Amino acid sequence: MSVDPYMRSRMNETKSYVPSFRIGEPLQGGAVGQVVASRCEVLAEGDWVNSMYGWREHYVANGEHLMRIDHEIAPVSTALGVLGMPGLTAYVGLHDIGQPKAGETVFVSAASGAVGSVVGQLAKLKGCRVVGSAGSAEKVRHLLDELDFDAAFNYKEVAVADALGDACPDGIDIYFENVGGEHLECALARMNLFGRVALCGLISQYNATEAPRGPANFPQVLVNRLLLKGFIISDHFDRIPDFLAEVGPLVASGKLKYRETVIEGIENAPSAFIGLLSGENFGKMLVKLGPGPTEA
Amino acid sequence: MSVDPYMRSRMNETKSYVPSFRIGEPLQGGAVGQVVASRCEVLAEGDWVNSMYGWREHYVANGEHLMRIDHEIAPVSTALGVLGMPGLTAYVGLHDIGQPKAGETVFVSAASGAVGSVVGQLAKLKGCRVVGSAGSAEKVRHLLDELDFDAAFNYKEVAVADALGDACPDGIDIYFENVGGEHLECALARMNLFGRVALCGLISQYNATEAPRGPANFPQVLVNRLLLKGFIISDHFDRIPDFLAEVGPLVASGKLKYRETVIEGIENAPSAFIGLLSGENFGKMLVKLGPGPTEA
Repeated sequence: MSVDPYMRSRMNETKSYVPSFRIGEPLQGGAVGQVVASRCEVLAEGDWVNSMYGWREHYVANGEHLMRIDHEIAPVSTALGVLGMPGLTAYVGLHDIGQPKAGETVFVSAASGAVGSVVGQLAKLKGCRVVGSAGSAEKVRHLLDELDFDAAFNYKEVAVADALGDACPDGIDIYFENVGGEHLECALARMNLFGRVALCGLISQYNATEAPRGPANFPQVLVNRLLLKGFIISDHFDRIPDFLAEVGPLVASGKLKYRETVIEGIENAPSAFIGLLSGENFGKMLVKLGPGPTEA
Repeated sequence: MSVDPYMRSRMNETKSYVPSFRIGEPLQGGAVGQVVASRCEVLAEGDWVNSMYGWREHYVANGEHLMRIDHEIAPVSTALGVLGMPGLTAYVGLHDIGQPKAGETVFVSAASGAVGSVVGQLAKLKGCRVVGSAGSAEKVRHLLDELDFDAAFNYKEVAVADALGDACPDGIDIYFENVGGEHLECALARMNLFGRVALCGLISQYNATEAPRGPANFPQVLVNRLLLKGFIISDHFDRIPDFLAEVGPLVASGKLKYRETVIEGIENAPSAFIGLLSGENFGKMLVKLGPGPTEA
């Protein structure tokens, strides 16, 4: 089962792009599982499926809202991460909004996360210089040593403005934004003419108790003729076939790497979710539900 | 001769999209004049031309940087306004960024200005609901009575947030931004899903002595999947032929109306410019240089 940053906004009463969770009802979210019994024509016992029914260990469902997973391409857990919504999010934001060209500089925040790590690797495959921020020395090492980032820094240890100055000597052409706040302001200050900002998440602000302030250097958007575009992945499911055709083989061949942080037991899902918001995950944060159908 | 808001940013030392003016050198700017003598093959005495040589009453120039004006379409002064850079700015920002569709709501700030008045009228011709803000009761009446806006308000008299709530019951699909600050924040709060913001100017901030604050509701860009795009008209001169072909006949036939505020004498150009920044103009702000070639 997946825990994802967007769930945080469903815990507010304010209008957002998905309805708020209701107290007393099970939380919704992506989950992968195996069919234990079926009276449905298109799904058989033993099939692996992706659903939006988690957080729960079992459910009875009409087959309509279940998507069968091909478990031979990669482990089924990847359907919640690198080959699921986070991977698709990276793909759409980078390609459709960022439109990277070889030689350009791409900066991605929360770069070791489920989305950011795919953004960086896809941008490298496009021939871009790739710079990432992450929240620990271990994550930074992972970006540099395993994911082949050109530069990376720990935003908890260094000033983002200084680090970006060093890491992006030719400025930033594409900023893939997962964080908001100081990150956004510092990135805007270094964007090149005609730069693109794919606005995917603002995780630094989700738990804010004071009204956030906007980027004080907002006029940079005009001066440098920037494009800023907010996007939500559920608007872009038409891109799933292209995404799986392009990224599936990269994952299967090991050219595109991913990590998962797996927490055991639905009783630990709340702490997994809270940990996600403070960056305790490394790559995709998952909760293993059990004893589940894999043992059945 | 034209005075334009973008000139204000050339009076700062900060890096912007055009070089700063240099003390002791004549100010540059658009101007229309008549050739009094020519040794150039492509221009003859009596021809009307558009240049970037103003603020000055006469000059000697190579013909290369002069553009001949067809004075039979409309008065030559329109080459600095409705058929010049401001008109082109309106055309490009509305069509290329805003991409208006019939039935959508378009909000334009500084709506009675040289750019805003063209934005509103072109959007009406596209079948949009058009809402404008302006800085006096007289300007608001002009928008409603002469330019056929659906709604308009005086932002000096009413709260922008309240006025937009009343004027845009179905939200805003396109915001053409000339002003910034409170206008931007209030517009973001009412933007519809997939709305577009054409970021043309931020005139409210040009004279700011304190660091401006960014829009506190910036996360709306993500929640409502907005597109924000800054643009500078000099990047879009390739659109001049389309613009003149479409807007020229509208001006010639009187379907697209324009106003000019004309100040007499180059000695009054500084006060014309200062007046422009505080909204003393009505439509395009011009300075008539004299005794100029029209009397020659």
